[in-house]
Amino acid sequence: MRLKVKSIPLRLEHSSVMMNPDDAAELGLIVGDRVKVTYGKKFCVSDVHIAIEMVERGEIGLCKTVGPCEIHIPEGVEVDVKPVSKPKSVEYIKKRMRGEKLTKDEIYAIINDIVVNMLTEVELTAFVMSDYLLDVDFNEIEWLTRAMIDTGETLSFERGVIVDKHSIGGVPGNKITLLVVPIIAASGLLIPKTASRAITSASGTADTMEVLADVNLGIDEIREITEIVGGVIAWGGATNIAPADDRIIRVEYPLSIDPKPQLLASVMAKKGAIGAKHIVIDIPVGEGSKVPSIEVGRELSNDFAELGRRLGLNVSCVMTYGGQPVGRTIGPALEAKEGMAALENLKAPKSLIEKAIGVAGVLLEMAGKTTNGAEYAKQILTSGKALEKFKEIIEAQGGDHGIKSEEIPVGDKKYDVIAPIDGAVSVIDNKKLVKVARAAGAPKDKGAGIVLHKKGGHHIKAGNVLFTIYAEKEWKLEQAIELATIDPPVIVSGMILERYPSYKII
Amino acid sequence: MRLKVKSIPLRLEHSSVMMNPDDAAELGLIVGDRVKVTYGKKFCVSDVHIAIEMVERGEIGLCKTVGPCEIHIPEGVEVDVKPVSKPKSVEYIKKRMRGEKLTKDEIYAIINDIVVNMLTEVELTAFVMSDYLLDVDFNEIEWLTRAMIDTGETLSFERGVIVDKHSIGGVPGNKITLLVVPIIAASGLLIPKTASRAITSASGTADTMEVLADVNLGIDEIREITEIVGGVIAWGGATNIAPADDRIIRVEYPLSIDPKPQLLASVMAKKGAIGAKHIVIDIPVGEGSKVPSIEVGRELSNDFAELGRRLGLNVSCVMTYGGQPVGRTIGPALEAKEGMAALENLKAPKSLIEKAIGVAGVLLEMAGKTTNGAEYAKQILTSGKALEKFKEIIEAQGGDHGIKSEEIPVGDKKYDVIAPIDGAVSVIDNKKLVKVARAAGAPKDKGAGIVLHKKGGHHIKAGNVLFTIYAEKEWKLEQAIELATIDPPVIVSGMILERYPSYKII
Repeated sequence: MRLKVKSIPLRLEHSSVMMNPDDAAELGLIVGDRVKVTYGKKFCVSDVHIAIEMVERGEIGLCKTVGPCEIHIPEGVEVDVKPVSKPKSVEYIKKRMRGEKLTKDEIYAIINDIVVNMLTEVELTAFVMSDYLLDVDFNEIEWLTRAMIDTGETLSFERGVIVDKHSIGGVPGNKITLLVVPIIAASGLLIPKTASRAITSASGTADTMEVLADVNLGIDEIREITEIVGGVIAWGGATNIAPADDRIIRVEYPLSIDPKPQLLASVMAKKGAIGAKHIVIDIPVGEGSKVPSIEVGRELSNDFAELGRRLGLNVSCVMTYGGQPVGRTIGPALEAKEGMAALENLKAPKSLIEKAIGVAGVLLEMAGKTTNGAEYAKQILTSGKALEKFKEIIEAQGGDHGIKSEEIPVGDKKYDVIAPIDGAVSVIDNKKLVKVARAAGAPKDKGAGIVLHKKGGHHIKAGNVLFTIYAEKEWKLEQAIELATIDPPVIVSGMILERYPSYKII
Repeated sequence: MRLKVKSIPLRLEHSSVMMNPDDAAELGLIVGDRVKVTYGKKFCVSDVHIAIEMVERGEIGLCKTVGPCEIHIPEGVEVDVKPVSKPKSVEYIKKRMRGEKLTKDEIYAIINDIVVNMLTEVELTAFVMSDYLLDVDFNEIEWLTRAMIDTGETLSFERGVIVDKHSIGGVPGNKITLLVVPIIAASGLLIPKTASRAITSASGTADTMEVLADVNLGIDEIREITEIVGGVIAWGGATNIAPADDRIIRVEYPLSIDPKPQLLASVMAKKGAIGAKHIVIDIPVGEGSKVPSIEVGRELSNDFAELGRRLGLNVSCVMTYGGQPVGRTIGPALEAKEGMAALENLKAPKSLIEKAIGVAGVLLEMAGKTTNGAEYAKQILTSGKALEKFKEIIEAQGGDHGIKSEEIPVGDKKYDVIAPIDGAVSVIDNKKLVKVARAAGAPKDKGAGIVLHKKGGHHIKAGNVLFTIYAEKEWKLEQAIELATIDPPVIVSGMILERYPSYKII
């Protein structure tokens, strides 16, 4: 069918066309079908949407696309429009849905079609759900990981030992990357760290680093800076490393699921793509984090190690305490300030220092630098070498070399939440803290967030400050206060330490 | 946040708003989140889409909606926009995904949110996939069915015995409803039949009936016509009977799945909603139909009977031969013509007559009209009473009472497909026939379709006509011919009847 192009000023995830219902019926098309639009030698395969008023009979509306499928066809020209069958990968997804195992080629076809945005939301959800509800064997996980690596950009270095760290997430305030990367870079190892932005948290490492420097680095900049200063903290989303993962996450997020095969493949694909040889994976364990118990954490650690073995990567996992935030701050600027202060050897929470040197230490041991990694990492930190290295990294990423923790601005709207009674902090709810920090504006408003004055088990007097909410905008501060009042994230109980099993605060 | 309304001339399934990426970030929203838009006392809850060019900062684009959620807010006014949490039903879907059983209230909440279009594609797909991949017990199926009934319109009659028939589909050319409804109505029973339009087939019963009369009847018209003439053949989609089903089908279609709990609930909800007392369910069995074997058909029959028992409905299932089309025609006008000819007692295929009187006979026996239903149905048919009743129904639905089968127009573009060798018809592929009929224009072009001159097992001489393709448009005829040539739906083999197990042709 010949149709006249109308340009629709709407940018969608998928390559999409808007058709008049009569023309769509003429071609036997319904929503969820696909057409091939051809203009001269150019063509694209697009999802069909039905637009009742926007597109007349004889017209086809072309939307702009975020993906690699975009072709530029001028408004007003005639194009040829033909129904096309679903991609082969949809057959493979249906095969998986029937409980059958997929071959390497089939998994590659699915991942490839995910990357070029050829699958609809429904098809992609069906794929993720089948990973969530059915057994996936280790061959399939390995192929999934390799396919994710091979369908994106990769890094390689001419010299040096590449290492990396990753946290599977779930614990707020986990700014240890700001310490680990400079410690490792100062030791002479190379650590080209790609980090994520917050999806549901109050600040991703990329959001936090962005307070200090530019994180939107391309793959060549990441290579270059790593080769010169030894380390980088960039936003992975600005690169094209393992791009399938970003698409998959967009379906997992609204269902709040993270199927283990996807989790394993997602983490290891990113590490494989940057050519890391030694990798440490931080698995926060505890109520409110992703891994509820040490047993589940051990199983996951085994899986990471097995996948690493198959990919030729040396993997160590560390299970860390995830029952409450790391350090005392939540939110981009507050976390950057706390991390910087720790590097400056100013007053810093023990939980932050201990976790950072613990994780860095494992990497140092894996790379054969020392047999007492934590001690070695501590020396680099206390000597000021880590601070100097971090400033070099900041400068290389276009930030201010001279920045001091005390100069990092935070939100000027504040509210202190007060302990209502004498007692001890019995509950610190990670998820509720994150909700309050997000209501205050984090991560979009860099200065918004929370400072905890007391953590779990600490004694407090009635009337003293439990935590402070920071915001940049009055209306956001108000909505955060409202949320914290209705559903308090920190609870004080009388003599609580007598009533609960003790826990270790690191 | 206060935003200025911009009207977007795009009609979508869900209540949707288009936001500028900066405003969305300001509210901490990403694609898949929902907002509550308030204007005075009016409000709606809508999905958030990000529009890069269409909507400026400070604006919010309101799309038109197909569903019941539409509210009319004038362009240019200011509205209040607030993030809202996901509906409770999403929690219940996640509970189901974890393998837990749902309560009655939870299932009602899900179905209700499906009806008011509160679930996104991702969430709805997750629900359907969990039905497909996990065990669903009979309590849940019963609640699912009752929820589907209770969230839509229902019919009730002051007098008469209400009966109904349903085919689970999968076999082309199944126009028996055109015979069964008038036979039953002529017997004095009431049969308010709601039928569907084709989604993937070449003609739904509603598409076929539409050749003869108006099928877009509201629930009151269906009641009225049924009370006056005893029967009706209306398009169910024009009513609000079991509306959840339509939404669910839109997700099942692109995955070509029909999870058993949904199939059972979908059929029985429609029958329950119209107050049917006796129901016969036609289960076509055979290669290429939905049910591959008698064993699978028996299991499904048991499930239908059990669900009927729980709902207080008297259910019989008949397994019918589904290995090739019923009768010789496929496509709306060709099927209407063949059905009408059978009622006129003109030459009609044995498979059509035998199946129609078989199914009608079961209903007559269930309602206590006779102990030999097929014979009774045959008498009504051959006496001309069924024809007279069908004409009354056509007239009541606004059609021409005097219509004759020979006057029904079909496509004037034709192409005969010829047997290449002497032999017998060894393969009739239902799915390929449907593809060819759809390529020729069915169901949108009423006159398009296929007439089979030979069916499975029939002998044929080289050069004789195997089947004829009809179309209304030359280019569609050409694409149908191309498809039939590349991938022939009917195969002639030499002496095939000696080589294969025989099968019964009804």
